[in-house]
Amino acid sequence: MNYQRLVEIIRKRKSYLCVGLDTDPAKIPAGISMLDFNKAIIDATRPYCVAYKPNIAFYECLGAEGWEILEETVKYIGNDHFTIADAKRGDIGNTSTYYAKTFFETYGFDSVTVAPYMGKDSVQPFLAFENKWAIVLALTSNPGAMDFQLFQQGDKKLFEEVLEKVSTWGTHENTMYVVGATRADMLADIRKIVPHHFLLVPGVGAQGGSLEEVAKYGMNENVGLLVNASRSILYASNGSDFASAAEKEAKSIQLAMAATL
Amino acid sequence: MNYQRLVEIIRKRKSYLCVGLDTDPAKIPAGISMLDFNKAIIDATRPYCVAYKPNIAFYECLGAEGWEILEETVKYIGNDHFTIADAKRGDIGNTSTYYAKTFFETYGFDSVTVAPYMGKDSVQPFLAFENKWAIVLALTSNPGAMDFQLFQQGDKKLFEEVLEKVSTWGTHENTMYVVGATRADMLADIRKIVPHHFLLVPGVGAQGGSLEEVAKYGMNENVGLLVNASRSILYASNGSDFASAAEKEAKSIQLAMAATL
Repeated sequence: MNYQRLVEIIRKRKSYLCVGLDTDPAKIPAGISMLDFNKAIIDATRPYCVAYKPNIAFYECLGAEGWEILEETVKYIGNDHFTIADAKRGDIGNTSTYYAKTFFETYGFDSVTVAPYMGKDSVQPFLAFENKWAIVLALTSNPGAMDFQLFQQGDKKLFEEVLEKVSTWGTHENTMYVVGATRADMLADIRKIVPHHFLLVPGVGAQGGSLEEVAKYGMNENVGLLVNASRSILYASNGSDFASAAEKEAKSIQLAMAATL
Repeated sequence: MNYQRLVEIIRKRKSYLCVGLDTDPAKIPAGISMLDFNKAIIDATRPYCVAYKPNIAFYECLGAEGWEILEETVKYIGNDHFTIADAKRGDIGNTSTYYAKTFFETYGFDSVTVAPYMGKDSVQPFLAFENKWAIVLALTSNPGAMDFQLFQQGDKKLFEEVLEKVSTWGTHENTMYVVGATRADMLADIRKIVPHHFLLVPGVGAQGGSLEEVAKYGMNENVGLLVNASRSILYASNGSDFASAAEKEAKSIQLAMAATL
């Protein structure tokens, strides 16, 4: 999916919600398969979101079967939503090309999350595919984000160096950044470095971030935000009404988002 | 595999060679399957190496079939060699636990390579499994290593901060570090920070690093080195004699290693 189409579906649905398909076999209702759970969540949330983001760990841990579930899930999502393989990959050039092929070609995702530690030749292979995206970790929403991402050279923090350098390798039409909502006040400074890029913002909902603050500090002229919610939607109910509970939660987030647009 | 056993097989085989199973379908001889190629390489190199390191990208890109090849390959290696899933994973705590389960339990690897960017809660889940290891990226051997790993706060570089911090999260019996051989002169300084840990050293051979320098600056009281060679062994010949060519190359590296012990 290209930039224009992504902005178009955001405007049309009045939503920049990304539903994180962190489908944990230990948390879904008894008697339903992972694939059927995903399909029910997708059906329930389609009108209210613009993107789906399966976290690959939950599929990979099941072996070959998990990869089949992932493949079927991506197919089921179809072409009206932006798809994100939350895989946090990154390796030397030749190898990153294989990771890119895996998610872009084998599984048909629009984008992959990428860890920046290994530098340019680990990120660039993800930028060589037409209408595909690298979503690079900048400032994450977990406690460990403090360990290295705030490491500081002069007056510049590591995540700011990541934003600056990576932005010279790609454009706002093939690169996004992960910026945690638990640090919404930092979004204004981040927007000075990357005014035009989309930001993928986890940490709203279960992790405690505020949608209003994210919209206030993070939105740009084309919205430029994908805000992710996973657990608050997937596990809104742990009973047989999980899909209608997920629908209700997604709709409520979409309404809050519409108010910020 | 635990620390003592690893040191024992290194002493016994007079080798600290790790064979990187970066099995590229585009590079193996025509008419042989990836799995049969791996088996032939393993049979040819068993006496001369102590570890095998499949790079997961090459398997993952084939979808479910690739994961089956990976599983069969790990089984075929058996218990007399240390196994490394070169996956460079790292995610928030809950998710990293799933990645750890994938490689340690589903596939039975001894260790996984881990990217440190997301900090403590992304690394620690890999340290919670008995006799299993996290091998954390510190200073890699690719050109992009210069982009962020040398970012400097005061007189400390980012990769030094990674070595120092990660060493407080685990011990030399469950943590190793990736340190590229293309920077062998830096190994002496790295040994001051992590005197007792094993270092996984890629970049000898095809990438141009010197084994003698790595041994001189990097070896500790229990050897403390796993030196990886991939392409120089796997593709020593592109003909039907690939296995005997691989054997010859692995034996030659082992002899050079024995001379440093």
